[in-house]
Amino acid sequence: MPSNKPNISDLGEKNLIKRLLSRSQNSIPTSPFFKTFFDEFSRKSLEDDGALLSLGNDYLVITSDLLLEPSHFPTVMNPMEMGKKAVIVNLSDLSAMGARPIGIIMSIGLPPNLPLEDFDSLLEGIIGTCEEYDMALLGGDTNQADNITLCGTALGIVDKNKVLMKSGAREGDLVAVTGDLGLAAAGFEILLGSPISIDLNSLEKEDAIKHALQPRARVKEGLLLSESKAVTSATDITDGLLSEMGEIAAASGVGMRFYENKLPVKPIVTEIASLVNKNPIEMIISYGEDFELLLTIKKDEFNSLKDLVELHVIGEVISSRRIEMINKNGNTNILVLKGYEHLKKS
Amino acid sequence: MPSNKPNISDLGEKNLIKRLLSRSQNSIPTSPFFKTFFDEFSRKSLEDDGALLSLGNDYLVITSDLLLEPSHFPTVMNPMEMGKKAVIVNLSDLSAMGARPIGIIMSIGLPPNLPLEDFDSLLEGIIGTCEEYDMALLGGDTNQADNITLCGTALGIVDKNKVLMKSGAREGDLVAVTGDLGLAAAGFEILLGSPISIDLNSLEKEDAIKHALQPRARVKEGLLLSESKAVTSATDITDGLLSEMGEIAAASGVGMRFYENKLPVKPIVTEIASLVNKNPIEMIISYGEDFELLLTIKKDEFNSLKDLVELHVIGEVISSRRIEMINKNGNTNILVLKGYEHLKKS
Repeated sequence: MPSNKPNISDLGEKNLIKRLLSRSQNSIPTSPFFKTFFDEFSRKSLEDDGALLSLGNDYLVITSDLLLEPSHFPTVMNPMEMGKKAVIVNLSDLSAMGARPIGIIMSIGLPPNLPLEDFDSLLEGIIGTCEEYDMALLGGDTNQADNITLCGTALGIVDKNKVLMKSGAREGDLVAVTGDLGLAAAGFEILLGSPISIDLNSLEKEDAIKHALQPRARVKEGLLLSESKAVTSATDITDGLLSEMGEIAAASGVGMRFYENKLPVKPIVTEIASLVNKNPIEMIISYGEDFELLLTIKKDEFNSLKDLVELHVIGEVISSRRIEMINKNGNTNILVLKGYEHLKKS
Repeated sequence: MPSNKPNISDLGEKNLIKRLLSRSQNSIPTSPFFKTFFDEFSRKSLEDDGALLSLGNDYLVITSDLLLEPSHFPTVMNPMEMGKKAVIVNLSDLSAMGARPIGIIMSIGLPPNLPLEDFDSLLEGIIGTCEEYDMALLGGDTNQADNITLCGTALGIVDKNKVLMKSGAREGDLVAVTGDLGLAAAGFEILLGSPISIDLNSLEKEDAIKHALQPRARVKEGLLLSESKAVTSATDITDGLLSEMGEIAAASGVGMRFYENKLPVKPIVTEIASLVNKNPIEMIISYGEDFELLLTIKKDEFNSLKDLVELHVIGEVISSRRIEMINKNGNTNILVLKGYEHLKKS
């Protein structure tokens, strides 16, 4: 007998997470013990890049990411790169809140036939990245699994007055990103070995591939930006620029307008898009995997920031609750966020 | 060309974890920022049930567990029970350190064809358990996976003077456990549907099955025991009594002697062992999945504890660094801990 019951793919990931988070927010006990750890921002933070626990003048930031083959680790990624990425995705969440990393705990699932040298490379990727970003590996455990599975949970700390959240964007703020868009997408498309032979400038190719396989987290930038107090909201764009614009817009009760010709995009991205017959704008704003920060910044204070951190202004915050893209011809596209996962044009 | 390179199963899980932890302990940066969070106990804690971050007079305890089908979720387990177990395994680690739970963050991997009602049951298992144990769900995320994969990271807090660790056992201390041994093993054997029909008292059967599918964590007991200051070391025995005796012995630089006839074992355990043709002592001391605490307690102070918490004295701490079992005939078996995973008799 065939079942007509809905399954989770009918809802989509963002809606599943919303279902989880709406239950989470009601789960915080109200006794005095919990009031010491959970203030108004802590409650809001459950929908942010990391959860905030109140500790005196600071927030402890906690964030967790589960990475699995093949979704997060394409076959071209080696074990060291997997270990590195499992740390970077968490660091990226900490940086989006302006937090200084303390440490990460790593739970690892491994297939029993994994060569020991691959395990050692995985560890080297994890530890090497911890060293590079000046944080501790707080231990972890290993379990048997069908595929390599890495679950990292990172802790960081941020002054309560300096925490960056998704909810502070105000009309008129500038919208900016910290670096190239679509470059990781281009890298993955090269690596996925499109049937069309890709014959491009090899330095640019290497750059794109490196962005895909060995991303960096914007930890220093997050700290500098949180110190400045000029940033009104922030998040990282691992899930794609458009989706994260939608997150900030929803959390702040605003909308955003951005300009296609202001997006920082290297020529290789559009070249690859054309070679593999993909819509370049989708690769730039929806593909994800660029570990950059998306920020809204007080207009008057932007000049004081731009010498400290690489920043590309791509648009501004608007009052109407929608995302508008002004394309290269000056036409306005209203981007409907269907659960933030699909892109439709008006 | 066949490869002679070792793979991880040649090492075994405990040795892999040791490899991970030995690297972790050297990873803690030494700058003043890190000195505020990591004291001597924090460094030791990386080999304990949870990592300790120093926060004034308290430790924040962080523990993470990755549960995967089929290793941790047998096919007989429903989604609500899976959600519950993912919280309980972490609570059990917190209780082993005497910590009060604050919250848990849950990263979830799900197959796309999972019925939505199963996802809701999973959530209900997670949230219901958080409510039952008075802790918050700190959010999480969902990802696509081949099988249900749950990674919980729990935070708790404990007074620095009351933290329970694996490393405090001293010669002459009593060795005790908080409840039945082998009962979860019996439950799983019933559920795994041995070909021999199991016709036993149905109440006892239900009790064993419940222990297997819906374990409880000894959170209240952990708190009472840490308050008492009579406990010199503690851990939970999810991985099996013998393995955890080895952990305490190694961390404390001692050994343990226990008495087969003092082990708290319900008759159904030996009955099931005989029906499925397994060695009952292996089911009792090596199978694991009993979410009880293993403790060493100052001899003079034991009487003050036994009315507060269910405790079964099973032996004592000895100076020679080995685990001895005095069997029912009074003979001594020296249990060699080959990586704590295999059981050999002398």
